[in-house]
Amino acid sequence: MTTQELIEQIKIKKSFLCIGLDVDLNKIPKHLLKEDDPIFVFNKAIIDATHHLCVAYKPNTAFYEAYGIKGWKSLEKTINYLNENYPEIFTVADAKRGDIGNTSTMYAKAFFDDLAFDSVTVAPYMGKDSVEPFLTFKNKHTIMLALTSNQGAFDFQTKTVDGKELYKQVLETSKSWNNSENLMYVVGATKAEYFADIRKIIPNSFLLVPGVGAQGGNLQEVCKYGMSDNVGLLINSSRGIIYASSNADYAQAAAEKAQELQNEMEIIIKNK
Amino acid sequence: MTTQELIEQIKIKKSFLCIGLDVDLNKIPKHLLKEDDPIFVFNKAIIDATHHLCVAYKPNTAFYEAYGIKGWKSLEKTINYLNENYPEIFTVADAKRGDIGNTSTMYAKAFFDDLAFDSVTVAPYMGKDSVEPFLTFKNKHTIMLALTSNQGAFDFQTKTVDGKELYKQVLETSKSWNNSENLMYVVGATKAEYFADIRKIIPNSFLLVPGVGAQGGNLQEVCKYGMSDNVGLLINSSRGIIYASSNADYAQAAAEKAQELQNEMEIIIKNK
Repeated sequence: MTTQELIEQIKIKKSFLCIGLDVDLNKIPKHLLKEDDPIFVFNKAIIDATHHLCVAYKPNTAFYEAYGIKGWKSLEKTINYLNENYPEIFTVADAKRGDIGNTSTMYAKAFFDDLAFDSVTVAPYMGKDSVEPFLTFKNKHTIMLALTSNQGAFDFQTKTVDGKELYKQVLETSKSWNNSENLMYVVGATKAEYFADIRKIIPNSFLLVPGVGAQGGNLQEVCKYGMSDNVGLLINSSRGIIYASSNADYAQAAAEKAQELQNEMEIIIKNK
Repeated sequence: MTTQELIEQIKIKKSFLCIGLDVDLNKIPKHLLKEDDPIFVFNKAIIDATHHLCVAYKPNTAFYEAYGIKGWKSLEKTINYLNENYPEIFTVADAKRGDIGNTSTMYAKAFFDDLAFDSVTVAPYMGKDSVEPFLTFKNKHTIMLALTSNQGAFDFQTKTVDGKELYKQVLETSKSWNNSENLMYVVGATKAEYFADIRKIIPNSFLLVPGVGAQGGNLQEVCKYGMSDNVGLLINSSRGIIYASSNADYAQAAAEKAQELQNEMEIIIKNK
């Protein structure tokens, strides 16, 4: 999917919501556990109930890998279901990968070719040659960690490097990489006041924003400081939506939570 | 496996060699491609031919993920084969994972419980709460990236943070984390002169050292500056060993290359 197509979808749906499909068998409704593939059944129901309210889905690969081959199959079925039924949806493999060049190429193939995701999250620690292999894929997007939503973000990311915080160095440096137009960035909603500075460095890039809801981030604040001319934000909510109910009405409850966020986003877009 | 058991194995085998099982179907002998699971057949032959010369095997997960579910099955068969036939071998899932707390726990379960690896590599960018979930597993080891072997290491890792290079901050900071005795570190062989400084910060921790051979690192130099009282090094070689021959004699050729390194290591240990 091109960035322009994503922007179009945001305009059509009046939403910049990304729904995190982080499925934990201990948290989904008990009656699903008798299914052959409970994770896929759960995802399918959530997707069918919410696809008109969001522009993106983001399975975090950890939740699938934890169930071994069975989990990997659930992930494959989920992305195939999305690509076949809702090709207008932007898909994110939240995998936080990164390795030396030839190895990063293998990861890029895994997520872009084999699984056919539109984007994958990567970690910046290993630098340019660990990220550039991802950037060579046409109409695919590489979402690099910049400032994450967890407490550990303050361990290294906000430390001062040559007079500038590390996450700012990461943003700044990455702009010079080959095919950097295929970069997006992860910036946690829990640090809304940082968005103004971030927009000075990357005024137009899309930001994937976790941490609204369960982790305490505030949507209004994030939009106030982080929105670009083309919205430029994908606000992710996982647990707040997919675990809205642990009963048979879980999909409907998820849709209601997604609808609340979409309503809020529609107003924000109108008043922009 | 405990650290003490690993040290014992190094003494018994007079080797601190780790063999990287980074299997690319384009590089293995052509005749294997007619097998049902060429990756596993290749790994099994390499392992059977080299297990007495090394103390560890390190499959890089990227090479398996690139082949989807089939690749994940090859990885599972490989680790099961190792655990069943050579339980004295230390196993490393080179996955470079890292995420927020509850998600890192899922990754830890995937590699420590589901696949039963002895250790997994992780990235430090997201800080303490992204790594500590891995450290809670008893007799399992978390190998954190410190100074990697690629050119991109100079993009952020060697930049000065509060008066000290980032990789040194990472080493220093991690020492205060809960269960930090379960930490090991990745330090690239391509930067041998850095080992002396690193040993001042972590005198006894095990270091996983990629970059000898194909990437140009020098074993003698690494050992001169990096060896601890208990050796404290796992020197990894991947391509230099497993692709020593692309013909039917590939396993034997791999054993010869591994033997060369083991011979060199035996002399280094004796002269320590």
